[in-house]
Amino acid sequence: NGEKYFCSNIGAEVAIVTARLENGEDGIKGLQLFLVPRYRKDGSLNYLIRRIKNKIGTRSVPTGEVGFENAEAIVINEEIPGIYLIMEALNISRVANAIGSVSLAQRAISEAYNFATQREAFGSKIADLPLLKWEFGKRLEELHAASQLAWKSAELLNKVWEEKPPYSENYHYFRFITHMAKYWCAEVAVKHAKWSMEIFGGLGILEEFKVERLLREAIILPIWEGTPHRQILDGWEVMARYNLHERLFDELEAISPNSGSNIMHNKIQNLLRQSKEEQETSAGKIFRQLARTTANALAFKVTETVI
Amino acid sequence: NGEKYFCSNIGAEVAIVTARLENGEDGIKGLQLFLVPRYRKDGSLNYLIRRIKNKIGTRSVPTGEVGFENAEAIVINEEIPGIYLIMEALNISRVANAIGSVSLAQRAISEAYNFATQREAFGSKIADLPLLKWEFGKRLEELHAASQLAWKSAELLNKVWEEKPPYSENYHYFRFITHMAKYWCAEVAVKHAKWSMEIFGGLGILEEFKVERLLREAIILPIWEGTPHRQILDGWEVMARYNLHERLFDELEAISPNSGSNIMHNKIQNLLRQSKEEQETSAGKIFRQLARTTANALAFKVTETVI
Repeated sequence: NGEKYFCSNIGAEVAIVTARLENGEDGIKGLQLFLVPRYRKDGSLNYLIRRIKNKIGTRSVPTGEVGFENAEAIVINEEIPGIYLIMEALNISRVANAIGSVSLAQRAISEAYNFATQREAFGSKIADLPLLKWEFGKRLEELHAASQLAWKSAELLNKVWEEKPPYSENYHYFRFITHMAKYWCAEVAVKHAKWSMEIFGGLGILEEFKVERLLREAIILPIWEGTPHRQILDGWEVMARYNLHERLFDELEAISPNSGSNIMHNKIQNLLRQSKEEQETSAGKIFRQLARTTANALAFKVTETVI
Repeated sequence: NGEKYFCSNIGAEVAIVTARLENGEDGIKGLQLFLVPRYRKDGSLNYLIRRIKNKIGTRSVPTGEVGFENAEAIVINEEIPGIYLIMEALNISRVANAIGSVSLAQRAISEAYNFATQREAFGSKIADLPLLKWEFGKRLEELHAASQLAWKSAELLNKVWEEKPPYSENYHYFRFITHMAKYWCAEVAVKHAKWSMEIFGGLGILEEFKVERLLREAIILPIWEGTPHRQILDGWEVMARYNLHERLFDELEAISPNSGSNIMHNKIQNLLRQSKEEQETSAGKIFRQLARTTANALAFKVTETVI
């Protein structure tokens, strides 16, 4: 029994719901995952959709407010505290979010490029104007770097996805990189979707062109599966607790010795000596730099390999 | 006779239209401004609205596709080439855009703050969490600086708005600052509207909260009255042609001696010695830095006055 204000993909035949068992302990550890079918065994509706939400994007995956009254549900894997399952699901969907983000950014830049090679102004295609040429080059570089970070997080997931608690260091390293990838790739998606609208000029704000939708879809990417603040603080915590930046910087140094990772290394060491409050205050700025440095260093490796 | 793909505020009783007189010269100088009433003298419709556009924002000011057939129109000020009137109208609406941008950013930050002082997580209001406190502080600083730039452009408009061609240096200085203000304030509006959505988390993407609309309205601000590319290139051209950065840096130096404007000064002098293509290529990066430096220097003055 209960209600949920925000339920994604409301048209599905089965829902996954977090709830507390009647005899479950208090706090986050008492939460369990449940499978909730749309219909009860007797054929009646197992939960009621009160209304569909109007959202800025992902409208083809409707979100609804839901009420449960004597709903039938099946506990998923009662042996493991539900919170682990929830965190695992989130970790996996963060990888998907990062991959989706770089895909959206690529689509946005490609739509803009397609438009710019056809649109004329001042006697030439706008794609040939010096400022736009520079912009396209820079944006492709940034997209490439972000993609390397997204794929790094997918590679790590591939190694750890069957782990159960207690997790190995590999698992925590995967989490660390994934927080960074989810955060950074979503920023990249919004940035390039916004810019692509600008390439279309006034047409960019119209529904009849594609870039308006890309921006609306992009803006969700930094928010769901945890906002930037969440990724930054959780990523920082994993790193601080297990010293996983040491492993990252060893890897980056081997791949790309001039990536500036040693400067980041010093900054992070200095901050780790400060109070917890000071660390949280400064984590935003430094995690952003770390994400960009990591993405660029990973991209440098690929560039070398390709050449 | 003709058609217009994009006509703003389509419900108005009178339209302002750019068109060429029958005996008008070719090119941009032959363009004239016309007043076009909605109804002809005989009471019939003077132009037809073919359809209303679906837009990401400004939906309360509908945009339509329009067809003109033997429409009656009155030339506005035939003595002055229409292009001057158009440019003047654009310059004025760029000031309005800059003011609107900082107002929107202020509203977005204030909505986020209001939410953050009520929303609890991890045992405290989220507004009290160290990372968010830092973020709010930084964003208020940036908003304050951008506001100074917007108001500087309004102050300059106040001095020159009655000028006719040939324009004084004051007028070109106004244009230079206004390109910078329109560009930078719109960037600031989008940035903070996006961030405010994140403070609301999943709720931020729902129509029922205010920040979703703020983002949709904000995204238009960098686009209309000329995209960032246009502001950057036009601003750079005014500056390069009349050396108006010298005047700006003299002013900034007097207001705020440690604003870093001398570093900007050197960068700009170096770039002005390069080829036109090289200048256009690098203008984007350097104009962005210039806008931020100018905004910060102007804010520093106000801070001093207040203290």
